[in-house]
Amino acid sequence: MSACDIRGLAAAARQAGRALALASSAEKNRALQAMAAGLVAGTERILAANGGDVAAAKAAGRSPAFVDRLTLSAKRIEAMARGVRQVADLPDPVGEITGMWRRPNGLLVGRMRVPLGVIGIIYESRPNVTADAAALCLKSGNAVILRGGREALASNRAIAEILSAGLASVGLPSASLAVVPSPDRALVKEMLGLSGLIDVIIPRGGEELIRAVRAEAAVPIIAHEKGLCHTYVDEGADLRMASEIAFNAKVERPGVCNAMETLLVHRDVAAAFLPGFVRRLQAAGVEVRGCPATRAIVPDVAAAAEADWDTEYLELILSVRVVATFEEAVAHIARHGSGLAEAIVTADHGRAMRFSREVDAAAVFVNASTRFTDGYEFGMGAEMGISTQKLHARGPMGLYELTCQKFVVLGEGQIRDSRA
Amino acid sequence: MSACDIRGLAAAARQAGRALALASSAEKNRALQAMAAGLVAGTERILAANGGDVAAAKAAGRSPAFVDRLTLSAKRIEAMARGVRQVADLPDPVGEITGMWRRPNGLLVGRMRVPLGVIGIIYESRPNVTADAAALCLKSGNAVILRGGREALASNRAIAEILSAGLASVGLPSASLAVVPSPDRALVKEMLGLSGLIDVIIPRGGEELIRAVRAEAAVPIIAHEKGLCHTYVDEGADLRMASEIAFNAKVERPGVCNAMETLLVHRDVAAAFLPGFVRRLQAAGVEVRGCPATRAIVPDVAAAAEADWDTEYLELILSVRVVATFEEAVAHIARHGSGLAEAIVTADHGRAMRFSREVDAAAVFVNASTRFTDGYEFGMGAEMGISTQKLHARGPMGLYELTCQKFVVLGEGQIRDSRA
Repeated sequence: MSACDIRGLAAAARQAGRALALASSAEKNRALQAMAAGLVAGTERILAANGGDVAAAKAAGRSPAFVDRLTLSAKRIEAMARGVRQVADLPDPVGEITGMWRRPNGLLVGRMRVPLGVIGIIYESRPNVTADAAALCLKSGNAVILRGGREALASNRAIAEILSAGLASVGLPSASLAVVPSPDRALVKEMLGLSGLIDVIIPRGGEELIRAVRAEAAVPIIAHEKGLCHTYVDEGADLRMASEIAFNAKVERPGVCNAMETLLVHRDVAAAFLPGFVRRLQAAGVEVRGCPATRAIVPDVAAAAEADWDTEYLELILSVRVVATFEEAVAHIARHGSGLAEAIVTADHGRAMRFSREVDAAAVFVNASTRFTDGYEFGMGAEMGISTQKLHARGPMGLYELTCQKFVVLGEGQIRDSRA
Repeated sequence: MSACDIRGLAAAARQAGRALALASSAEKNRALQAMAAGLVAGTERILAANGGDVAAAKAAGRSPAFVDRLTLSAKRIEAMARGVRQVADLPDPVGEITGMWRRPNGLLVGRMRVPLGVIGIIYESRPNVTADAAALCLKSGNAVILRGGREALASNRAIAEILSAGLASVGLPSASLAVVPSPDRALVKEMLGLSGLIDVIIPRGGEELIRAVRAEAAVPIIAHEKGLCHTYVDEGADLRMASEIAFNAKVERPGVCNAMETLLVHRDVAAAFLPGFVRRLQAAGVEVRGCPATRAIVPDVAAAAEADWDTEYLELILSVRVVATFEEAVAHIARHGSGLAEAIVTADHGRAMRFSREVDAAAVFVNASTRFTDGYEFGMGAEMGISTQKLHARGPMGLYELTCQKFVVLGEGQIRDSRA
């Protein structure tokens, strides 16, 4: 196979995936344990490859944050191995039939959970994703084609070779795990067109990358567009609870998608809530930008521009708006939210019910921080990412979201009579 | 709004859909009953519009089958109304939370079923689909944009006006149901590009239409590609049962997607099974095309060409192949099947288990006819169509497949500590 034969790579993965789809949980778990052991045993080899990648990235003048994400260490490799072992411990979704129902003619009808087939992952220069994604795809019975950032290619190839050896060591087909072996961007384009060979592509990265992938893909994709999350403090809310939740949502880790970007406050509690809360934010280094009503209460905050309501800051900046009614808060979220995670702080049961019903987002929170939007936090185990789309997967994507269902119908000779 | 402002139509549907998403089951059912009554009361008006469509189609020299599908009658309108009332009787999926789980920190996490938003339907000149699709979208809380065949435009507009009036009569927003008001094909193209306004497009029609839609759509689509279904008669099968099931799958309604196109027979039962079964088929007017081993047993059948194994006949033609092993049958299906419906006739429990696990199709049957691949037959009620894709919906699409899920998380002040 030439370095550029991505169609051949996908066809081989598809073929190998058929065997993987039928592997038992025990076999897959043995492979995952072998992979984890291989990563630890191969630390020197991975670090050697990674060292080259890191040197090239530094020479190319990439930012310190970029270089940090790219850089591996013995400790980080141990963490990768631990992640792979954790996937082995998760329940295997494949083959599950949650129930069958009996039809009047005696047919038993149910749905069996099965792998999707071949999953393509396009991601940035973060070599740890290579092991995470490979482990999740293997456990869910899927072949995987990994296309990480070009700057991490040597690291990814070293990691993938070790993981493939783990597969082979328990008799599973190593072709079911492939790294696109060239940094050529034309290959990404080709990958996006492989309908029939790749069942779904999951792009992970910035808005720019997602938009480009979505525009070009013939293969279905599951993606995370962006996270513009709100917290709404309702009239009559416990203001101490509101302060805790909103502070956590903004400050605990501001650079992630499920952090809060805009705070909405009901006007009846604005005067009691905002002065103290804004002081607390400012003390934590947060820049606050407010609507006129906010600034009337806390004059020293900057004025929010119209564009602020649509901005995912991903840093210590917060826009604040006072709303006259619950309905105004819900309407603001419908207009400006990204459909990822939205929260209300309220003491009113009816409002809690309405908010959870009326707000259209992957995750809706009552009296809790949007920061919980995460596969581990939801109890689903390791995640492949968070989908902000509605079809197939919405919210954190775990092993279940990497599978689909088929109908299984068990009969005893039934035939159909359309005229009946 | 100009006749061509499809973006405006979709934006209005989206806005209206927000109210529809929150409507109670009782409201939606009252609307469906009003729609059904409106169809019956509006029979003359519908027939007048339809008469014009039919005359134009005849004048344009369309085939009798085409004209038959286009033609309405008082009886057919009554059947449409009955279909709408049946949708009212189906359980409402919206708002369902099948379970919540408690996390160690006390958070309750669950998934709530919610409408997709705005659904686009592109279909052929069959006015009955207008009422069916509108009823299913309404019951599942979705706005709908209907683009039927251009030859049925007057009929569809008359039907949609009546249905919209039914919505308005119970206070639901009539803009949530819209027919594309012009036959201009450029509007279909525009519709396929309305990401963010239309959540999913369901094309219904021939392979050609589906392919064209898939190639152009920026909006996600759910589609039925084609149906090339097999029945495999295993060694040791009850041959009387096999004859009944295979005959039903081929002959009962050969023009539909879930009819059998290829019969696979294990070589150990071929001599006992094929002569009688082929005679039975021939007596029913079926043309049989066999592999060499088939023709060695039943010399008067025609030779199957390689292309036969990949042909969806949709008529009284059957290709027959003798296989040496169970594995060969499964491999033939993997190579030539369309992923719609596949059946085994077997007396062996292990083979039944393996077939249902190893065959990758929307529906897998053990000892039953593939003809049962249908929403009603599976007990799911009326269907919007049958999906042959894997993401989101696979197999018959009922009300559930027109919805998605969101996470609902109920807390009492929980915040996240990443360092924990």
